[in-house]
Amino acid sequence: MVKLKCTVAYDGTHFFGYQVQPEKRTVQSEIEAALKKLHKGCPVRIAASGRTDRGVHAYGQVFHFTSDLRIPEENWAKALNSLLPQDIFIRQAEQVDNAFHARYDVRRKEYRYRLLTRPEPDLFRRFYTTHIPQPLDIGQMQAAARFIVGTHDFSSFCAANTSVIDKTRTVYELAIEPFADETIIRIAGSGFLYQMVRIITGTLLDVGMGKFTPLHVAEIVAAKDRNSASKTAPPTGLTLWKVTY
Amino acid sequence: MVKLKCTVAYDGTHFFGYQVQPEKRTVQSEIEAALKKLHKGCPVRIAASGRTDRGVHAYGQVFHFTSDLRIPEENWAKALNSLLPQDIFIRQAEQVDNAFHARYDVRRKEYRYRLLTRPEPDLFRRFYTTHIPQPLDIGQMQAAARFIVGTHDFSSFCAANTSVIDKTRTVYELAIEPFADETIIRIAGSGFLYQMVRIITGTLLDVGMGKFTPLHVAEIVAAKDRNSASKTAPPTGLTLWKVTY
Repeated sequence: MVKLKCTVAYDGTHFFGYQVQPEKRTVQSEIEAALKKLHKGCPVRIAASGRTDRGVHAYGQVFHFTSDLRIPEENWAKALNSLLPQDIFIRQAEQVDNAFHARYDVRRKEYRYRLLTRPEPDLFRRFYTTHIPQPLDIGQMQAAARFIVGTHDFSSFCAANTSVIDKTRTVYELAIEPFADETIIRIAGSGFLYQMVRIITGTLLDVGMGKFTPLHVAEIVAAKDRNSASKTAPPTGLTLWKVTY
Repeated sequence: MVKLKCTVAYDGTHFFGYQVQPEKRTVQSEIEAALKKLHKGCPVRIAASGRTDRGVHAYGQVFHFTSDLRIPEENWAKALNSLLPQDIFIRQAEQVDNAFHARYDVRRKEYRYRLLTRPEPDLFRRFYTTHIPQPLDIGQMQAAARFIVGTHDFSSFCAANTSVIDKTRTVYELAIEPFADETIIRIAGSGFLYQMVRIITGTLLDVGMGKFTPLHVAEIVAAKDRNSASKTAPPTGLTLWKVTY
């Protein structure tokens, strides 16, 4: 038996999220279907670094699985890609130690959120960006970001319907960077609560639009109450960029 | 009655091309359906600068129509966009002289063809670029382009199934430009024959891959025979960029 770690990109547009759900097209079920074919009908279960919601994309999602097939390490990605649909692509497959776990061993996760910041929409990027037609004050958003970076109880930035008890997480980095006609929010942390990146993004957008001051974000963090933060930003702009072990 | 000239962008991915076809989703039928709604059920016919094939996109397609509605000029685009699907967007609508014709008055058309020139594919651009994993010799392609620019009988670069008799056209400009991990082919001319841009692109690709020399392209032009040129490049990379009157 060998254990394989795969780095996978997917376009979340036409999936009902990452995780298997009965009767729905999900990323996990498509990958497991490809693995089943490769294993002559034997089911293979994969474990990913975490889920992504419906409409959210991934450039560097990671999952692992074990296999008794004798395929040279460098041929795994090609073998899987030949069986996967056009909207999933295995970027890398490497053999790892049997102790490796794609979820439990995560040290750092990075997400990127693409905002299309110009008056006119762009239909060619409608599935990959969130369109903000009004001007944003990037300086104010950057000032607000400083109150989010660090180790906090992120209850204010966690969707209500979650079973997680300890909501303490560490945000290592939160950058807001203009790039051509887009503004990219880049956030890295030890791990993220359910919809945490999208609620942080929604809150930063309200700061950028002048609905409240950067300092008010410190109060939102302190409140530990989901109702104090802003609306959840749409999934389309969001990509799970990189997972580090 | 007023005559309106509209500049429209569309994502060609989910259309069976521009022109109306029975039982098919086309750009023209979607726009005419929106206009019919706006005109309380009265059919309105539009005339565009020309067709685009299935899978081909537009950033600056132009069409005209006449209407007896009293809508201020600046509200037309908004009114139409509210009735159009997500993959069609009217960028501008302006009132024009009654003599204007979107097809007969064209002076210049510009197309852009996006090549993704790197080993790894990119699923987020799979509908908007054509992936060329092997390296291209841009200098050779630029040298070949010089034999295409100018006024020629472009029979070699016209799909066989066409009813057009005079195949003389003028190509004003043909640039091949690297841009990040893409190579953009920009071509402007007086008008283009059926699949002409895609056949020129396919031929330039063969030059870039070293299948033949730039000078051989001069021979292809002189042959006036579709069989002398290369395969038609896929539609996905192609966008009708701008129409000038």
